[in-house]
Amino acid sequence: MPSYTAPAKDMQFVLHEVLNISDAGIPGYEDLEPDFTSAVLDEAGKVASEVLAPLNPVGDTEGCTLENGVVRTPTGFKAAFEQMKEGGWNGLDLPEEFGGQGLPYLMGTAVGEMFVSANMAFNMYQGLTHGAISAIIAHGTEDQKTTFVPKMVSLDWTGTMNLTEPHAGTDLGIMRTKAEPQADGSYAITGQKIFISAGDHDMAENVIHLVLAKAPGGGEGTKGISLFIVPKFLVNADGSLGARNPVSVGKIEEKMGIHGNATCVMNYDGATGYLIGELHKGMRAMFTMMNEARIGVGLQGYAQAEVAYQNALEYAKDRLQGRDVTGAKNPDGAADPIIVHPDVRRNLMDQKSFVEGARAFTFWGAQLIDRAHRAGDAEAEGLISLMTPVIKGFLTDKGFETTIAAQQVYGGHGYIEEWGMSQFARDARIAMIYEGANGVQALDLVGRKLAAEGGKPVMAFFEMVKSFIKENEGDEALKKDFLEPLKSASKDLQAAGMYFMQNGMKNPNAALSGSYDFMHLFGHVCLGLMWARMAKAAQAALDAGTGDAAFYETKIATGRYYMARQLPATKMHLARIESGADPVMALDAANF
Amino acid sequence: MPSYTAPAKDMQFVLHEVLNISDAGIPGYEDLEPDFTSAVLDEAGKVASEVLAPLNPVGDTEGCTLENGVVRTPTGFKAAFEQMKEGGWNGLDLPEEFGGQGLPYLMGTAVGEMFVSANMAFNMYQGLTHGAISAIIAHGTEDQKTTFVPKMVSLDWTGTMNLTEPHAGTDLGIMRTKAEPQADGSYAITGQKIFISAGDHDMAENVIHLVLAKAPGGGEGTKGISLFIVPKFLVNADGSLGARNPVSVGKIEEKMGIHGNATCVMNYDGATGYLIGELHKGMRAMFTMMNEARIGVGLQGYAQAEVAYQNALEYAKDRLQGRDVTGAKNPDGAADPIIVHPDVRRNLMDQKSFVEGARAFTFWGAQLIDRAHRAGDAEAEGLISLMTPVIKGFLTDKGFETTIAAQQVYGGHGYIEEWGMSQFARDARIAMIYEGANGVQALDLVGRKLAAEGGKPVMAFFEMVKSFIKENEGDEALKKDFLEPLKSASKDLQAAGMYFMQNGMKNPNAALSGSYDFMHLFGHVCLGLMWARMAKAAQAALDAGTGDAAFYETKIATGRYYMARQLPATKMHLARIESGADPVMALDAANF
Repeated sequence: MPSYTAPAKDMQFVLHEVLNISDAGIPGYEDLEPDFTSAVLDEAGKVASEVLAPLNPVGDTEGCTLENGVVRTPTGFKAAFEQMKEGGWNGLDLPEEFGGQGLPYLMGTAVGEMFVSANMAFNMYQGLTHGAISAIIAHGTEDQKTTFVPKMVSLDWTGTMNLTEPHAGTDLGIMRTKAEPQADGSYAITGQKIFISAGDHDMAENVIHLVLAKAPGGGEGTKGISLFIVPKFLVNADGSLGARNPVSVGKIEEKMGIHGNATCVMNYDGATGYLIGELHKGMRAMFTMMNEARIGVGLQGYAQAEVAYQNALEYAKDRLQGRDVTGAKNPDGAADPIIVHPDVRRNLMDQKSFVEGARAFTFWGAQLIDRAHRAGDAEAEGLISLMTPVIKGFLTDKGFETTIAAQQVYGGHGYIEEWGMSQFARDARIAMIYEGANGVQALDLVGRKLAAEGGKPVMAFFEMVKSFIKENEGDEALKKDFLEPLKSASKDLQAAGMYFMQNGMKNPNAALSGSYDFMHLFGHVCLGLMWARMAKAAQAALDAGTGDAAFYETKIATGRYYMARQLPATKMHLARIESGADPVMALDAANF
Repeated sequence: MPSYTAPAKDMQFVLHEVLNISDAGIPGYEDLEPDFTSAVLDEAGKVASEVLAPLNPVGDTEGCTLENGVVRTPTGFKAAFEQMKEGGWNGLDLPEEFGGQGLPYLMGTAVGEMFVSANMAFNMYQGLTHGAISAIIAHGTEDQKTTFVPKMVSLDWTGTMNLTEPHAGTDLGIMRTKAEPQADGSYAITGQKIFISAGDHDMAENVIHLVLAKAPGGGEGTKGISLFIVPKFLVNADGSLGARNPVSVGKIEEKMGIHGNATCVMNYDGATGYLIGELHKGMRAMFTMMNEARIGVGLQGYAQAEVAYQNALEYAKDRLQGRDVTGAKNPDGAADPIIVHPDVRRNLMDQKSFVEGARAFTFWGAQLIDRAHRAGDAEAEGLISLMTPVIKGFLTDKGFETTIAAQQVYGGHGYIEEWGMSQFARDARIAMIYEGANGVQALDLVGRKLAAEGGKPVMAFFEMVKSFIKENEGDEALKKDFLEPLKSASKDLQAAGMYFMQNGMKNPNAALSGSYDFMHLFGHVCLGLMWARMAKAAQAALDAGTGDAAFYETKIATGRYYMARQLPATKMHLARIESGADPVMALDAANF
């Protein structure tokens, strides 16, 4: 059975030595001293490795079942959920006025990585709740906040997001679910929603569905969409549970992975719903949830890769097979551990350098969210808006690829379910699909985010890379191994952006044909930047002679690997982008 | 439920217009006129789409079960197997003296692609049998051939390959299965083998296991290994079945995919085995099976991608979502089919250009095998030996990647089992692992095949590419879109080979660290060459004004896509290779 050890030391390095959080000048960050964050991460790490990780294969094997209309979660999930409630983990980064602990989003992200690595399917029950809470806090009335949020923060109730219908996924404008105004100001919601994660279960008293539906008078397309709160059980004025709302589980889908989470078909049969936010402005409210969810999904991508890497590494150290070509390393054994073989190392270094770069990137993104929300920093808001599709799309594509690479280290055993690597791969696969399939992320990036605010955020990004290079080019070691490759990759990204500007106006397909490659190109530059920043921080610690020298030297060597062996992908993506629309659009649909 | 349509027209194009088989001057090819091969392919295509494809999800859902020591195959498998027997499909390319039809290996490959696309797990029962037959024909005594081969050709009996043990996979030298000589000249085989595909089942009267084991006196490592025929039921002198041999199924593994094929733990408890080939030279005999099996696995990689692509394409034409950014294409519908979106096309073109290139590459490889075996052509033998790890490693990596890309077209539905895309992905995953994990293929390519015969095969390959370019550079259209990119990619491959020569002698890790990238680089050059050849053939047909112009124009456009958007990967692989061993080998195992 696979195991999980929380990478608290790596996280502390990113938080304190790379992002320098306690000096970041962000309200609420002043208390984030290393001792404090270490205590939080250690406690979360224990829950992750001791409570959640052992349940991961159980969830995969048993899955969820529908009994008399109620979803039953796998053995042990309910008890673990109670522990999550008692530990107050869901409220870690939620406002104190609703029962949360009020820590920054960044801390929630770090803890979230651990929980997702340990048990992605389980963590989704509270992950969806977290997104729903954010939407209610941002768009709900005072009464809605008071009624729903505290119970959701405590996980007595959980939340869901209801967007997709059988014929309407990415294209929400064609949805059919109706909201009919009622005399009491509520709405009667009727329709079918699919792919509803954590749609129902037996671990909470109530499920609060946030549902997109069309109320009369909104017009065609997404303009007619509003957002509604539809509780499984109606809530009485005193906060107690009232009548069962006519919302029911049609079935649980049989999926490739995340079996421990119930993905439900939800039927709304005139269910009572309460408008949240403005009428016919539901998409705006939904995006509050979506943006947070997209960063959370990017995190899922690399968090699955992290746990898969950990296990692949242990296997590579244990499994004896063949001999080191330069001389036996384990002469008394039947063979050497496979980690001696260059191609196994190549594979492990691909994994390690991606995961650590992805973590730094995601934590940086979380810090930008805190900067935007807590310090009202508009530049940070623009940057994270720009990078959200990159975090979601790039980290889930590479996260899945990395998980597959980790599975490969096991040889035939990787394909056998009992070793656990198959589950990591099957679970990681969904992250490329949900919350906007990665092609949609690429479209969002190139079709919307690049041009947002007249291109201000993307210019700020390039400026930041340029400044970092300029500030540090006196450092010879950093210059050759980190700054020069970063500069070259960043130039590729700029050239791609230039290609879009020059060609996309007269032919949008010239830009959109390269959108997916642009998303990957951008991701590589971001990870390159993070590795340069990590190498700088590690070198500073080595120069100061403080701490664990081997740890810092390993960081630098891992970064060098990324720069030398991953960053060259930017040229390939640029070449694909610059080949333009013609190769992509050449065929009539009938001739494929 | 997914469907499958045999791509007979594409196959005919490769066979007759690209490989010009009936004029190839290979013994047995003279009868391969278009009408004849078309009749064979049409008949095979019917079996594939009507008999095998509908059973594919059944096999996945039901899997195999072990009842009282006997493996039960999924519902319908037995009846389909009877149809395979009646059709004589297994003997298509096997010698007439043993009941086969004596057609070239190339024809077996074309038919095999169809069967694998339709139902990979099912086809393995006969695929393994085919490999075992080849080994017995190549290394068995006359008596062994007479006793076993005809019954295996007819599929009354099936075959298996037994190599792996729990602690010995790639490193067969450390295997423990023993062969004790008996007074009657047979051996008593004792030990446990794992991952035995088609290890047992209820569709044939007997299972003929080919088993690697150590007989006394052979010394350490692979030198001590011999190959044995171990029938499930002993065979009497008159050919009837005798006593049950003490070989039994320990369990069926729970796997990520290919559930329809029983992957067995086989226990040999003093089972009677007959030496095949020379004592202590078992590895040589095993490689007869392995090389054929590796090409068959490469075929699995792209054959799964083919069926996944077919279904993704249909979905992309049917699914209405969003509008063409340049103007609605389906104004009367709620939305346009998603094939209008550039990123969906990018994805589909990646799939299409890979699959068609891979088919041409594999068919060319099969033709080289025929040339080697039927015409005794040593250069062909050298070339196919060099390219076998490329066919296996590159086509299964890219085949899986392509299958995942096809699954992505379905959005959320791709993750739901009932749509079938998950099965294609899960089934395709194994091809990267078995018959030598792809890292081992890369090692074989760089550590063994490059230097084979003093580098003669690889020089012949480069010479062939060079000649093709030279012969055709007067053709302006071919030159710009095909020959120039091919030349550039081929130069990258040569530069990589040069890097290995200059650095690998003093440090083998400098070559081995780049082995995986070299395998991919080589694969891209091979597919680039095949696309250039296909474009030339298609242009010739267009110039002649014969046939279906849209078909040929589509071929050229698809080839252009591959050259413009896939071939740039060669530069990335070269950069990774030229970064050398240092980034890969920098860390001590303890510091990972």
